[in-house]
Amino acid sequence: MTKRVFGHIEGFPVGSWFESRSALSQAGVHRPTQAGIAGSEREGADSIVLSGGYEDDVDWGDEIIYTGQGGRNPVSGRQVEHQHLNRGNLALAKSKLHRLPVRVIRGSTHKSRYSPETGYRYDGLFLVEDYWQERGKSGYYVWRFRLVKYSGDETLAESQVREEQSSYSVPECRETMILRIVRDTEQARRIKKLYDFRCQVCGTRLEGSAGPYAEAAHIRPLGAPHNGTDSLDNLLCLCPNHHVLFDYHAFSIAEDFSLIGIDGYLIRHARHRINPENLRYHREHYYPDMDHV
Amino acid sequence: MTKRVFGHIEGFPVGSWFESRSALSQAGVHRPTQAGIAGSEREGADSIVLSGGYEDDVDWGDEIIYTGQGGRNPVSGRQVEHQHLNRGNLALAKSKLHRLPVRVIRGSTHKSRYSPETGYRYDGLFLVEDYWQERGKSGYYVWRFRLVKYSGDETLAESQVREEQSSYSVPECRETMILRIVRDTEQARRIKKLYDFRCQVCGTRLEGSAGPYAEAAHIRPLGAPHNGTDSLDNLLCLCPNHHVLFDYHAFSIAEDFSLIGIDGYLIRHARHRINPENLRYHREHYYPDMDHV
Repeated sequence: MTKRVFGHIEGFPVGSWFESRSALSQAGVHRPTQAGIAGSEREGADSIVLSGGYEDDVDWGDEIIYTGQGGRNPVSGRQVEHQHLNRGNLALAKSKLHRLPVRVIRGSTHKSRYSPETGYRYDGLFLVEDYWQERGKSGYYVWRFRLVKYSGDETLAESQVREEQSSYSVPECRETMILRIVRDTEQARRIKKLYDFRCQVCGTRLEGSAGPYAEAAHIRPLGAPHNGTDSLDNLLCLCPNHHVLFDYHAFSIAEDFSLIGIDGYLIRHARHRINPENLRYHREHYYPDMDHV
Repeated sequence: MTKRVFGHIEGFPVGSWFESRSALSQAGVHRPTQAGIAGSEREGADSIVLSGGYEDDVDWGDEIIYTGQGGRNPVSGRQVEHQHLNRGNLALAKSKLHRLPVRVIRGSTHKSRYSPETGYRYDGLFLVEDYWQERGKSGYYVWRFRLVKYSGDETLAESQVREEQSSYSVPECRETMILRIVRDTEQARRIKKLYDFRCQVCGTRLEGSAGPYAEAAHIRPLGAPHNGTDSLDNLLCLCPNHHVLFDYHAFSIAEDFSLIGIDGYLIRHARHRINPENLRYHREHYYPDMDHV
């Protein structure tokens, strides 16, 4: 079986038009010929088709509220059961968890000013920003997903940056925002798996509706002037609290893996070799020596 | 005394040129006539001047590594003592903590291809992305700050989005990133102050080098289709772990403020009135009813 591709499909740029679901499928832009969500529970969803199936869907162009799958009578199309967070719905939830881009295709039967007049159009990559359940018009629970365009200058982050930047402000009345950017590389995935999403400081494992959540922290930061490497010997698996504290000068790690600034020892897997030079770099740069601070 | 302005100064757009430090000061673009950092330890830093004072400074145009203040012999200009995380240095650290934009002014004496030929030029808003200490060329510790341009299409977030978006990828080899966007409104500041940065679920207070850290969580999300309000009756003060769990369907809050999904009760301040409708909204939409999931 072909590997699932998260991102653009080569040869089919944004705006590509397709006559039918089978043309979409052959191009690899959206493989299933019937289902609205392409993906797996384990890997995440790589594409969705908007084709007017659910009356609750909302389309604001760069932002879409998409209703999950399941629970409908195949003949009448009416919702006759609750939807569950499984199959395509769980795949979309996994795409949020792992920040995977989802290809969005609009069909002519999708009721929106953004739909093509005929056939299907590939409209680019979106990120799943949130998902929740609600009682649909039928009275049954459905799952809903907020997808936000992820390209050029139309991302959520950018429009918010603009909004803020265009206003003059004093601390008492201004809006600020926090952008916490965490690159999720293949190495980051490996470290999280190695520790089964448990924090190496406190052992916490955060469990949500789409699976466990942890963060990968680079010991010596990536990029100039630090030039840390993106490799297991420079990574830790941490809960969000200890990630904030590690980056925020609250604790560091000694050569013998005892923690400095908090009690205890770093939890280590037998196969996880941490480069002592990276720990030294963190101690020197991110753990203020209290003698002179 | 005039209020400190974080952001652009009206009447002085990016690119504005000034003959001298006193002209800069009179315009309000950078008030102190000698110090390189304008700001206070409590409020944060609102502007810096790059004037070649420190040989360790690095200037990549949209990204600057700026050396903090203090410890230099005023006559020779040589580093003769360690720098401390206080005064202007602590002000810059506070600007990172609160995500305050910092005006950057380059002077002609700053050694960089981006410097003006004479006088001083206002070069726009930057965000403090990180800070750390290191031994400067003198052997004494200095504090260094990474500032990243915060405007138009030159923000860190944007360039990374572009980078990712232009590559075709499969899950095994791709880089993804997590953008956690948390608006820090005036109400968010109030709720954090009310609880003295302690999590309302676990009581944790994260302490870093520039002060305590907590996150403000909207109970009913802002924006369509939820349309929650940005007001204290819709806000909680949480640690990052419980913020993730609250948004990620792991727990909710009953009408009597007992926690659902985890043990215990929500910690509440006598002056904090939470709207029960907002709690109900969260339970219905963000805490899956296990009977039908």
